[in-house]
Amino acid sequence: MTINFAILGAGRIGQVHARAVAGNENAVLRAVADPMPDAADAIAERYGCDVRTIDQIAGSSDIDAVVICTPTDMHADLIEQFARAKKAIFCEKPIDLDVARVSDCLEVVAAEDGFLMVGFNRRFDPHFMAVRKAIEEGQIGTPEMAIITSRDPGAPPAEYIQRSGGIFRDMTIHDFDMAVFLMGEMPETVQAISSVLTDPAIGPLGDFDTASVIMKMASGKQVTITNSRRASYGYDQRVEVHGSLGMVAAENQRPVSIEIATANGYMRPPLHDFFMTRYIDAYANEIASFVSSLTDGSPANPTGVDGLNALLLADAAVESVRTGASVRVKVG
Amino acid sequence: MTINFAILGAGRIGQVHARAVAGNENAVLRAVADPMPDAADAIAERYGCDVRTIDQIAGSSDIDAVVICTPTDMHADLIEQFARAKKAIFCEKPIDLDVARVSDCLEVVAAEDGFLMVGFNRRFDPHFMAVRKAIEEGQIGTPEMAIITSRDPGAPPAEYIQRSGGIFRDMTIHDFDMAVFLMGEMPETVQAISSVLTDPAIGPLGDFDTASVIMKMASGKQVTITNSRRASYGYDQRVEVHGSLGMVAAENQRPVSIEIATANGYMRPPLHDFFMTRYIDAYANEIASFVSSLTDGSPANPTGVDGLNALLLADAAVESVRTGASVRVKVG
Amino acid sequence: MTINFAILGAGRIGQVHARAVAGNENAVLRAVADPMPDAADAIAERYGCDVRTIDQIAGSSDIDAVVICTPTDMHADLIEQFARAKKAIFCEKPIDLDVARVSDCLEVVAAEDGFLMVGFNRRFDPHFMAVRKAIEEGQIGTPEMAIITSRDPGAPPAEYIQRSGGIFRDMTIHDFDMAVFLMGEMPETVQAISSVLTDPAIGPLGDFDTASVIMKMASGKQVTITNSRRASYGYDQRVEVHGSLGMVAAENQRPVSIEIATANGYMRPPLHDFFMTRYIDAYANEIASFVSSLTDGSPANPTGVDGLNALLLADAAVESVRTGASVRVKVG
Amino acid sequence: MTINFAILGAGRIGQVHARAVAGNENAVLRAVADPMPDAADAIAERYGCDVRTIDQIAGSSDIDAVVICTPTDMHADLIEQFARAKKAIFCEKPIDLDVARVSDCLEVVAAEDGFLMVGFNRRFDPHFMAVRKAIEEGQIGTPEMAIITSRDPGAPPAEYIQRSGGIFRDMTIHDFDMAVFLMGEMPETVQAISSVLTDPAIGPLGDFDTASVIMKMASGKQVTITNSRRASYGYDQRVEVHGSLGMVAAENQRPVSIEIATANGYMRPPLHDFFMTRYIDAYANEIASFVSSLTDGSPANPTGVDGLNALLLADAAVESVRTGASVRVKVG
Repeated sequence: MTINFAILGAGRIGQVHARAVAGNENAVLRAVADPMPDAADAIAERYGCDVRTIDQIAGSSDIDAVVICTPTDMHADLIEQFARAKKAIFCEKPIDLDVARVSDCLEVVAAEDGFLMVGFNRRFDPHFMAVRKAIEEGQIGTPEMAIITSRDPGAPPAEYIQRSGGIFRDMTIHDFDMAVFLMGEMPETVQAISSVLTDPAIGPLGDFDTASVIMKMASGKQVTITNSRRASYGYDQRVEVHGSLGMVAAENQRPVSIEIATANGYMRPPLHDFFMTRYIDAYANEIASFVSSLTDGSPANPTGVDGLNALLLADAAVESVRTGASVRVKVG
Repeated sequence: MTINFAILGAGRIGQVHARAVAGNENAVLRAVADPMPDAADAIAERYGCDVRTIDQIAGSSDIDAVVICTPTDMHADLIEQFARAKKAIFCEKPIDLDVARVSDCLEVVAAEDGFLMVGFNRRFDPHFMAVRKAIEEGQIGTPEMAIITSRDPGAPPAEYIQRSGGIFRDMTIHDFDMAVFLMGEMPETVQAISSVLTDPAIGPLGDFDTASVIMKMASGKQVTITNSRRASYGYDQRVEVHGSLGMVAAENQRPVSIEIATANGYMRPPLHDFFMTRYIDAYANEIASFVSSLTDGSPANPTGVDGLNALLLADAAVESVRTGASVRVKVG
Repeated sequence: MTINFAILGAGRIGQVHARAVAGNENAVLRAVADPMPDAADAIAERYGCDVRTIDQIAGSSDIDAVVICTPTDMHADLIEQFARAKKAIFCEKPIDLDVARVSDCLEVVAAEDGFLMVGFNRRFDPHFMAVRKAIEEGQIGTPEMAIITSRDPGAPPAEYIQRSGGIFRDMTIHDFDMAVFLMGEMPETVQAISSVLTDPAIGPLGDFDTASVIMKMASGKQVTITNSRRASYGYDQRVEVHGSLGMVAAENQRPVSIEIATANGYMRPPLHDFFMTRYIDAYANEIASFVSSLTDGSPANPTGVDGLNALLLADAAVESVRTGASVRVKVG
Repeated sequence: MTINFAILGAGRIGQVHARAVAGNENAVLRAVADPMPDAADAIAERYGCDVRTIDQIAGSSDIDAVVICTPTDMHADLIEQFARAKKAIFCEKPIDLDVARVSDCLEVVAAEDGFLMVGFNRRFDPHFMAVRKAIEEGQIGTPEMAIITSRDPGAPPAEYIQRSGGIFRDMTIHDFDMAVFLMGEMPETVQAISSVLTDPAIGPLGDFDTASVIMKMASGKQVTITNSRRASYGYDQRVEVHGSLGMVAAENQRPVSIEIATANGYMRPPLHDFFMTRYIDAYANEIASFVSSLTDGSPANPTGVDGLNALLLADAAVESVRTGASVRVKVG
C-alpha cells in the first residue's frame, strides 16, 4: 500500500519533509503548494512532483495525505480544511498559539473523524526513543524525575521571534512534550523563570532567551527544563530520567566523533549546529510513523491532544513568569 | 610554622578531619574530645594525640585551632566559646539551623576578631575547583546559568532526618553554596518543589527526599538544582555552568575507571558510593586551605557569611514549597 | 551533469551500492545485471531500472559507469572488459587475490586510458576522513605511529572463508589500506602473527581468525594492526594516529547513544553489528566521490595501485606468518 | 603486627616509597641510607627516622624489611646482602639488566629462603587490578588478545638513557610484565620494531624512542605493545584485553576531569604528566601488599621470577630488532 502525499509550504521545514516522504518506500510525493513559485518548483523538480494550489490539493483524488509546513497562523485553518476534505493530516507544531483556537480545531477534526498527527519530531529521534524504551522496559524502575536540556546554537531573527509566541511556546514546547512523552503523565503545576542574557534585541520584543522550568505531577514526579537561545558548541539536546532503580540519559550528537589530544588536552569536535542535521533521522522516522499508521490503521501519535497539552504547559510557564507563582495547569 | 589542632567530636566526620590534619605537613593533631571515650581513644591511638575535655582544650595553650565536628546543635555555642578562647575555628556546616542564631554567633566571632572557616568541603574538590578556575579565567565568558545535580546513594536513617532541618537545610545547602561559589553572585529569588518518592518513612517526619529548585539573580543569571536521596549507581555529583562563550562541567567520579564490553553493551562500574571516598581529596584540600590561611594570614574562605547565605537560600526554598510562590531571599 | 550507472552483481554489496547510486543527486541507476533473476529484479523494481546482461551493459550507449559487485574471481576480467568498453569503473576490493593478475589488469586499464576506482569504503567514513583531515592540517604534527583495530562481530561462513584468500587478504586488507591512507607512506617491512582462537572450523580451512601485524616505513614510522573475527559487543573499528604534537583517534559508532546507570554500573548499548549500518554514510560518500571525479574530471581515488599496494602488504603478512621473519614488501 | 622498614636510596623513587611506608598503618619507617647526606636527611626529618649506612641497616635488629631504591647496578648485590641478613626485601625493578646475574641472585635468595618482592608498581594500579579481576571473574570469557599502550610524556635525560639498558629493558619491561600479569601466560615468541622519531639524541646512544611489539603464546593468544618516549597530552597508559565473551579496558587517568565546550569543541584537560602522580595509589597499594604478605605469611607477588621473565621478554625484543626475525623466548 502506497500513500500519496502533498506538501503544503515549501520552505525549510517543507523541504525536510519532502525529502523524508521521497525516501520512504511506502510513500510517493505527488504535489507541493507554496505561494512562492520558486520554492514550490525547487521541490517539484527535485522529487518529480506537481505544483498545485492548496485548494487544488484539497480537491485532488490522487492525494491521500498532506504535510502542513506553512506559517503557524495558517495551521488551524488548513487542518480544518483538510479534515473536511478527508485527507490524513500531518501538521508541524504548533497547531496554533491560542489554546481556544486549538480546541476548536480539534473539535472539527473529531467531528470529521479525521486523522491528525502533530509534528513533535524529537519523539522520533532514535536516542530519545531508546530512552523511552528503556523506561517502558522497566530498566530504571518507576520514573521519578526528568531533566531536559535544550539549547539552540543561536537565536532566530527578530522577525521570527515576533511571531513565535515567545520562548515557552516556540522552543520550550518541544521540551514540554518530551516531558509528557518520557514520564507518561501530565504535570499538574508549573513554575518558570526567564531572562534576557544572550541577545539584547530579544527583550524589547517582550521575549526571553534563557529559561528554567520546574514542574510537578500529581504523583509527585518532577521535571526540570533548562533552555537557552545560545550554545557556542552546537545544538545541545539532552534528556535524563531518574527512576527507582537508576537513570537513563541520551547523549548529545556530533557529526564526527573523533578526539584530538595535544598539550592543550583532549578535544572533540562541536555538536551538530543545525536542527536539520541533528534530527535528520528523527524526521525520516516521523514520516515513517505517519505512513505506518495510515497503512496499518494504528492511531496517530502524537495526537492533536498532545499538541494541546504542550501548549497548556507553555501557557502555564508564561503565567508563572508573570506572577512569580506556581501555576496549576488547565486540563487539556 | 606548624598549627596545633584539636578535634571536637570523634564521630565519622571527626575521623575524616583527624586524618586530614595528620596528613598535613604544617599541622599537628594534639588533642581530641568526645563524650564517648572509645571514639576519642580510637583517634588518640591512631594519631598519637591526647584525649581532653572540650573545656580543657579551650584552656590549652598548646592548641592553635579547633575543628568542630560535634552534632549541629552544639556548633554555635562552641564557635562562641572558642572565639572567646582565641582559637582559630573550623566548623562543619551548618553553623546552626536557625538564621537568627547564626547571625548572633557571627556577631560574637566578629566582636572577638575571631577566625572562622565553615566546612563546605565541595568547594575544595579538585574538579569543582577546576570548574571555578575555568570560569575565572573567562573560558566560558560571562556565566549565565548553573545546573547542579546532587543525588545521594541512599537516605540517612530516620533519627538523622529528624534533626537535619530537612532536605533543603541538610542536603541542598551544599548546592546552594556551590551556586554562589560558581556564579559569584547571591540569588535573589528561589522557587522549589519537593516530593516523597524514594522512602515512605520520610513523609511522616515532615521531610522530603526529592527536590528541584530554580533561582534567579539580580543580573538575570539562573541556577537549577536537582536532588534525590536515592541513586542506585552511586554518589551523583555534577555541576555544569553555561556562559556567553561556552560551557564547563565537572564529571562524576568513580573508584575505578574500566570499561567492559560484552553482548549486553559497554559497562563502566558505579560511582563512589560514599561521600568520604568521593571527597577524600576535598577534605584534605579543605584542611590545607585552613592551615594556609593561618600560616600566611589570608582570610578564611568560605566564611561564616557563606554559611549564613546558604542557610538563607535553604529557608527561602522551604518557604517556596509551603506557599507555592517565588520567595525573595533575605539579605545575609 | 548526470552519470548513468549499471550495477554488476545484485547481491548484498550490490544492493548497498544501488541504494547509494539512487540516492545521489547526480547519478541515475539505469541497469542491473545478475545471473540470479530474482536478485536483479528486486533491485530493478526498487529503483526503477532495467535488468540487462553484462554484455548488454558493456554495449549500452546509455551507460556511463559500472559498479562491479560480483564474486572476486570475476573482478579482473570485468575491469578489463569495461575498460575496453570505455565505461568508468568502480570495483569492489580486491581487484584479484593474485598480485600478478592485478598488475596485468591495471596495465590493461592504463592502456585503455580507463577510469578505475577501487572500493575501499572506509576511506569515506566521516570519522576516518576527519582523522586524516586533522593529520593533513598538522594538528598532530608529523605522524609517527598508527594503531588500527578491526574486529568483526562474527566469522563469515566456511564457504566464504575458503574463497576469501585468508584473513590478511580479506579482512586485514582494509586496515593495510587504512594505514597507507592515514600515514601517506607505504610500509617497507611487515611482521605478522596469526592464530585460530574464535572458531575451530577456520583452522582446517588453512585460515586464521585472530591476527596482529607490525609494519615499519622507510622513515621509521610504525603501524600496528590487530584483528579478530569475533567481537561480542559489535563492529569494533578504531584508528589512532600519534604524531610529534599529539594524537587523533576515531571512536567506535553505535546506533543509539544512550547510557543507563543502575546498581550494576553505567551501561551503553553495543556498537553497530553489521558493516552495512556501520558504514552506510561511507558507502554514500564513496559513490559521491566516484560521481564527482567523473563530473569534474578529478582522478580516481583510491586507484588500482592502492588496491595493489594493500594486496602486497597482505601477501607480505602471509609470508611473515609462514617464515616467522620480517618480510620486505615488494614495490607496487 | 608492625613491620619496621629501612629505605635504601633516598632519591626520587626512595621518597615515593618512604611516603607509602609512612602512610601504612602496619609499617614504621625506622631508617634511611644514602651516600648523599642531604637526601637521606630530608627523608629522616620528614618522617622522623634515623640515617644509617647500608651495612648498619643490614646489622640492625630493629629492621624487618628493606626497600631497595638505589641505582640499578647495586640491586643484585643488595638483594644478596639483605637476603643473607634475613631481611624481607622489596626491590625496585629491574633486579639487574643481565639475565645471568638475575638468575644467580635469585639462587642466593632461594638458598637463604629469602622473601623478595619486585617493584612492578603497575600491577597495583586500581584500574589495572580491576581489569585483571574482571578477567579472573570470567567477565570476558577466555582471554585471547591484550593490547597495551604505554607512552611517556617525554624522554629521560641522555645520562639516564645510557645506563637504562635501552627502551625494551627500561620502559617496555613494565608492559612485558603487564602482559604476563593480565594474560596469565608467558609469551613464547617475540617480534619487535623500533625507531628514533622523537629525540635525535637517542639514536647516537644506540637506543630507540618508539617501539612496537607483537608476542604469541603457546595457546595462540596474542599481545601487542606500543611505546613512545613522547606524548604531548600526558602519561598515556592503557590496557585492553579481548576474550571469547568480550573486552575489558582501563581508561587513562587525569588529575581533573572537567570538560569545557566552546565554539572549538569539547575539551578535557591533559592526562597526568608524571608517573608519581599517575601511580600514587599504585605505590601505596604496592607497599601495602608487601606489608600484608609479611604479616599474614602469604608469598611475595610479583616475585623475582616475574622480574626475570620480563627481562627475558625484553632481551627477546632486542634480539628481534637486531635480526628482524621472530625470537623464541628462553625459559625463565
